Amino acid sequence: MGRPAVSAAQAGTVVRGTARAGRAVVDGLARLGVSTVHEAQGRTNLLDPALRPVWPGARVAGTAVTVSVPPADNWMIHVAIELCEEGDLLVVAPTSPSQAGYFGDLLATSAGARGVRGLVVDAGCRDVAELTALRFPVWSRHVSAFGTVKETLGTVNVGMACAGQWVEPGDVVLADDDGVVVVPRAAAEQVLADAQARESKEAGLRERYARGELGLDVNGMRDRLARKGLRYVDAGDSA
Amino acid sequence: MGRPAVSAAQAGTVVRGTARAGRAVVDGLARLGVSTVHEAQGRTNLLDPALRPVWPGARVAGTAVTVSVPPADNWMIHVAIELCEEGDLLVVAPTSPSQAGYFGDLLATSAGARGVRGLVVDAGCRDVAELTALRFPVWSRHVSAFGTVKETLGTVNVGMACAGQWVEPGDVVLADDDGVVVVPRAAAEQVLADAQARESKEAGLRERYARGELGLDVNGMRDRLARKGLRYVDAGDSA
Amino acid sequence: MGRPAVSAAQAGTVVRGTARAGRAVVDGLARLGVSTVHEAQGRTNLLDPALRPVWPGARVAGTAVTVSVPPADNWMIHVAIELCEEGDLLVVAPTSPSQAGYFGDLLATSAGARGVRGLVVDAGCRDVAELTALRFPVWSRHVSAFGTVKETLGTVNVGMACAGQWVEPGDVVLADDDGVVVVPRAAAEQVLADAQARESKEAGLRERYARGELGLDVNGMRDRLARKGLRYVDAGDSA
Amino acid sequence: MGRPAVSAAQAGTVVRGTARAGRAVVDGLARLGVSTVHEAQGRTNLLDPALRPVWPGARVAGTAVTVSVPPADNWMIHVAIELCEEGDLLVVAPTSPSQAGYFGDLLATSAGARGVRGLVVDAGCRDVAELTALRFPVWSRHVSAFGTVKETLGTVNVGMACAGQWVEPGDVVLADDDGVVVVPRAAAEQVLADAQARESKEAGLRERYARGELGLDVNGMRDRLARKGLRYVDAGDSA
Amino acid sequence: MGRPAVSAAQAGTVVRGTARAGRAVVDGLARLGVSTVHEAQGRTNLLDPALRPVWPGARVAGTAVTVSVPPADNWMIHVAIELCEEGDLLVVAPTSPSQAGYFGDLLATSAGARGVRGLVVDAGCRDVAELTALRFPVWSRHVSAFGTVKETLGTVNVGMACAGQWVEPGDVVLADDDGVVVVPRAAAEQVLADAQARESKEAGLRERYARGELGLDVNGMRDRLARKGLRYVDAGDSA
Amino acid sequence: MGRPAVSAAQAGTVVRGTARAGRAVVDGLARLGVSTVHEAQGRTNLLDPALRPVWPGARVAGTAVTVSVPPADNWMIHVAIELCEEGDLLVVAPTSPSQAGYFGDLLATSAGARGVRGLVVDAGCRDVAELTALRFPVWSRHVSAFGTVKETLGTVNVGMACAGQWVEPGDVVLADDDGVVVVPRAAAEQVLADAQARESKEAGLRERYARGELGLDVNGMRDRLARKGLRYVDAGDSA
Repeated sequence: MGRPAVSAAQAGTVVRGTARAGRAVVDGLARLGVSTVHEAQGRTNLLDPALRPVWPGARVAGTAVTVSVPPADNWMIHVAIELCEEGDLLVVAPTSPSQAGYFGDLLATSAGARGVRGLVVDAGCRDVAELTALRFPVWSRHVSAFGTVKETLGTVNVGMACAGQWVEPGDVVLADDDGVVVVPRAAAEQVLADAQARESKEAGLRERYARGELGLDVNGMRDRLARKGLRYVDAGDSA
Repeated sequence: MGRPAVSAAQAGTVVRGTARAGRAVVDGLARLGVSTVHEAQGRTNLLDPALRPVWPGARVAGTAVTVSVPPADNWMIHVAIELCEEGDLLVVAPTSPSQAGYFGDLLATSAGARGVRGLVVDAGCRDVAELTALRFPVWSRHVSAFGTVKETLGTVNVGMACAGQWVEPGDVVLADDDGVVVVPRAAAEQVLADAQARESKEAGLRERYARGELGLDVNGMRDRLARKGLRYVDAGDSA
Repeated sequence: MGRPAVSAAQAGTVVRGTARAGRAVVDGLARLGVSTVHEAQGRTNLLDPALRPVWPGARVAGTAVTVSVPPADNWMIHVAIELCEEGDLLVVAPTSPSQAGYFGDLLATSAGARGVRGLVVDAGCRDVAELTALRFPVWSRHVSAFGTVKETLGTVNVGMACAGQWVEPGDVVLADDDGVVVVPRAAAEQVLADAQARESKEAGLRERYARGELGLDVNGMRDRLARKGLRYVDAGDSA
Repeated sequence: MGRPAVSAAQAGTVVRGTARAGRAVVDGLARLGVSTVHEAQGRTNLLDPALRPVWPGARVAGTAVTVSVPPADNWMIHVAIELCEEGDLLVVAPTSPSQAGYFGDLLATSAGARGVRGLVVDAGCRDVAELTALRFPVWSRHVSAFGTVKETLGTVNVGMACAGQWVEPGDVVLADDDGVVVVPRAAAEQVLADAQARESKEAGLRERYARGELGLDVNGMRDRLARKGLRYVDAGDSA
Repeated sequence: MGRPAVSAAQAGTVVRGTARAGRAVVDGLARLGVSTVHEAQGRTNLLDPALRPVWPGARVAGTAVTVSVPPADNWMIHVAIELCEEGDLLVVAPTSPSQAGYFGDLLATSAGARGVRGLVVDAGCRDVAELTALRFPVWSRHVSAFGTVKETLGTVNVGMACAGQWVEPGDVVLADDDGVVVVPRAAAEQVLADAQARESKEAGLRERYARGELGLDVNGMRDRLARKGLRYVDAGDSA
Repeated sequence: MGRPAVSAAQAGTVVRGTARAGRAVVDGLARLGVSTVHEAQGRTNLLDPALRPVWPGARVAGTAVTVSVPPADNWMIHVAIELCEEGDLLVVAPTSPSQAGYFGDLLATSAGARGVRGLVVDAGCRDVAELTALRFPVWSRHVSAFGTVKETLGTVNVGMACAGQWVEPGDVVLADDDGVVVVPRAAAEQVLADAQARESKEAGLRERYARGELGLDVNGMRDRLARKGLRYVDAGDSA
């Protein structure tokens, strides 16, 4: 499945019965970090780093329920929550930039009760103190108390751009203190395998680095650096 | 009382004997959050969300002592502290944008000794480690070690714009992790009552959401959504 | 010693045997804060406040190992780590702005094993959770999982601009929650002495402020304020 | 008149019969630049410099018709145009930041037909090519094709903050390539007189500068500089 | 066709023989503005307004040749130009933000010689004076003299996100002083028809506005405004 | 000569008799563009691209008179103008970021009368309409009517950081629509020669590109691209 046809993307469309990435692969990715997974899929699909966690220390993965919303209007999030299942993660993007606080403790309570694992929103959120106390993880571009209206329709579970990347409903979204990355559903198993292999390799490297070995030797960089023209001079020569 | 006449606003004016909002209403607002109070007064008077707490977790309300300062010059803060009373909150705005660190641990010590509850500054502050250790709450646009001079006059307790909103001396200023909101003195009692009513209503909603009820039902949104044209399609239909 | 001649500054140059500021003066500065030291050297050499600590609460000083890197290419950091000594601090600046994550837990492990005290990078870093767990202090402009390549040479231990200031290898770099300041090696002893004098004076002031004395009196500001035209009016007069 | 009471400021309020600054004073100010007028009123009431002209070279003054609008909703501009008179200038501020294009060639045609002299909007505008061809001057924070809805009420001719300053309906708003400044209605005659005096004085200075006289001499700065500690050294001494 | 499978998207992939939107529809869209077309397709697919024209006044449409490039590396633009046909428009997006100047007068000369109508680049460009003299239209996020390297592969004519939206090769890209909008190839004929209808309707409105008719009447807004609660008060009542 | 010792850099120091780069080399560089010169000196010394020309189309080179100024204080520019000679270019940097308008038509008149060729200021300027009419070229970070004071000393003709790069008095500064680049005095002749050679080479390339030759062939890129893994696929294969 790819970019939806124009007819399907029009405001007011809500897609039911979206296929999700499997739970095992989602939970496998949740044990790895955003940076490792991003590397494992060829450095693609990283959301704009301007999206930051509202409170530090969370690392979650879930299956995307995508919500395209008008500026400063959060009506569609209510529509979306009905479609959420255990293990989902809400992904919300405004059609034009907005700082408004689309999401707060009431919606977190509601989403949490449906098994939603967190929220990624390319706009504002609020009730930071309450979200922190609830341990409901949110990645947002802004924090703002400014409220939203409920006047204009958007879409739910239609593919959309969010913070610079394309997200399809059912994709895996992984978020931690390093940011947010999307893993396309069809690629998730392969990416998980590659990320686990990468993680294993890094564990070996970490041990060697901890013993004081140099990246120059561990990665065999010296010859290529020399061929590129690296030259060492003594401090006295550079004045 | 409104926007001061031009003659009163000129640099060098310090107003004494400003009326303050009452302590009971201030302390009542302090128990509610910025988002709730902002909603209760019709989504007005929220300062620019770019003002962030220097350390997380504080929630304070106080009566505004307004300080209009030249860029990178904090002389008037010294003048203002003499006029502060127990329960006040310093509100500082430069006449042109400045990142300079207007306020640090010495001024926090001095302000704290006078009963000042915190600082809102649309510029920089410094000595973050010390402010955190003192638990003196500060909301600022920047953190910067760059110092200020003491050369040019400003005003104290004259109405002024701060971070996009108008603040009169004696207004209530409420700040927490969601940002900073001003409650005009004349409106403070009404806003407190409205905010408390809102809080009560939200407590009821929160309970229903926690049980898994949907916003669509709790708020009776389904009919209006349908009239606006919301339509559900199955995933198979959208390709 | 000053700005390097053009011939020395060309990409690929790595300078060995750089003189460092003495350990005693570095450790003396480490006990003072960035704001105090910045004041003590005449408010010079403060890096752009957009560089923020990745996790709060650290305060470190070290001798600069300077690394000039191409955009999104961290190869030279591997070269630099070999030249690091106990007590050094890595200072990394891209030749053109980059959000890429130049540094993560593997490099932190390697640098830490060589006695490096921290990193200042005018670009992005990643593996925030791991850096926090390692207590390896990093000040960066961005956090981003986006990786770097190893294709193009830069320089190590050549003087360079970083976040708006000039840094020479061997200079002292001091960083805490207020930001990052450079103390030129030749000036470090004098700056330390001046900063300690300032700190002592501030300790006395702090005590007087804590007792409720006013800055107006403690600093003898009243006369000069009056001469500049400060005038007190009563609230009733300003309407 | 000052900051409106809370009851008056609620969304949906449209004030008719607003008093305006007199035409002569408005036109007098229009002949001076923003920088001169801003100086003449003590460097107050300058809007955020992020508001830039959509096309260069215009300089206009008009009496403010203030329009407070919801994010991405331009309905109230239609309401406001009915209240506009020859010589007015529309001032539009969203209650929360918005990049949306609130104003384009149709509204410019309509406003122009009513004698409106221009628009200041702390959000986006669009149809730049057409506005340029029409010579309808606009100062905006953004240019964006993204459209607005017509769903939610705001206010017209109620005092409001716009781009960091307070604007009352009927105030003079002056804009040129340097930015936008508000002159309160009650002060407009005095500010005009002061600005004209300043302009005359600057004409004399300009002539002396053009002849090669130095600011140091023209303004008699040498003594005060010396007292502050200015010292001249020869290049050979500074190495 | 939709989002490419992961295997196809890997760096180094260059797709030949891409289908393009038809010349007639492209040229039809080129006669309309970005704002009109954006409205006609339901306010979708507008690129980030931070992309601005390097020189004002151009309005062009072309078929997208998409180029995904590493940060500060423009090698793939050379690869892409070989695949360009008369009527194409280059669309370039870095995989991580870069200010580097990816494109200047040499590439403009080369692209122009192949019939390329312009460039949209979500990064920097340079040689502004020369591009202006050549009348080669460029929309970019930055202007920067900083050069790029030719070391790392990207993709050509693979679907990609650019400045917040998804672009497929062969889509129509339309750009003018209002910004840049993408029209998906499959929708282009319908969007053209809708945009032309909209343009005709606006021509009628423009005439009525020019005669002084009000939007309130032309659009029949008065009743709905009244039902929403709009109320007119006289200036005397609002103090 | 290099980074000045701390004692020389203290505020209040004005250096007379600075050596300048020779007129012939300055005028030679003035005939080349910023991008070409920046390339010719190894992509070094480019100022932050956020500095933009106040009016388009100028290209000037001059010998730097460096002015380090306090935030929002332009006193030292008056001091500097006395030291300016025919062919100089003023370079002004605040010690902490400032948007204030440091420079307007009076100073431009004065500087122009002394033979100053232009201004680079890492802060604000004003009187844009007048500077445009005078054809006095200015590159600035901001445009703002907000005025400066004359209270605090800075330095003149002491090396300083400006917009991210180090500038020594007497260096060549070259500016055009692409930005601003510094050419160290000692390197200026070599850089001029290299830039002229580059320009000649580019003239040949430009001709070949204009005839439709490809960069792939002109630069012999095909083999290296293939070795890196470039692979062509047909559009039908990528779905």
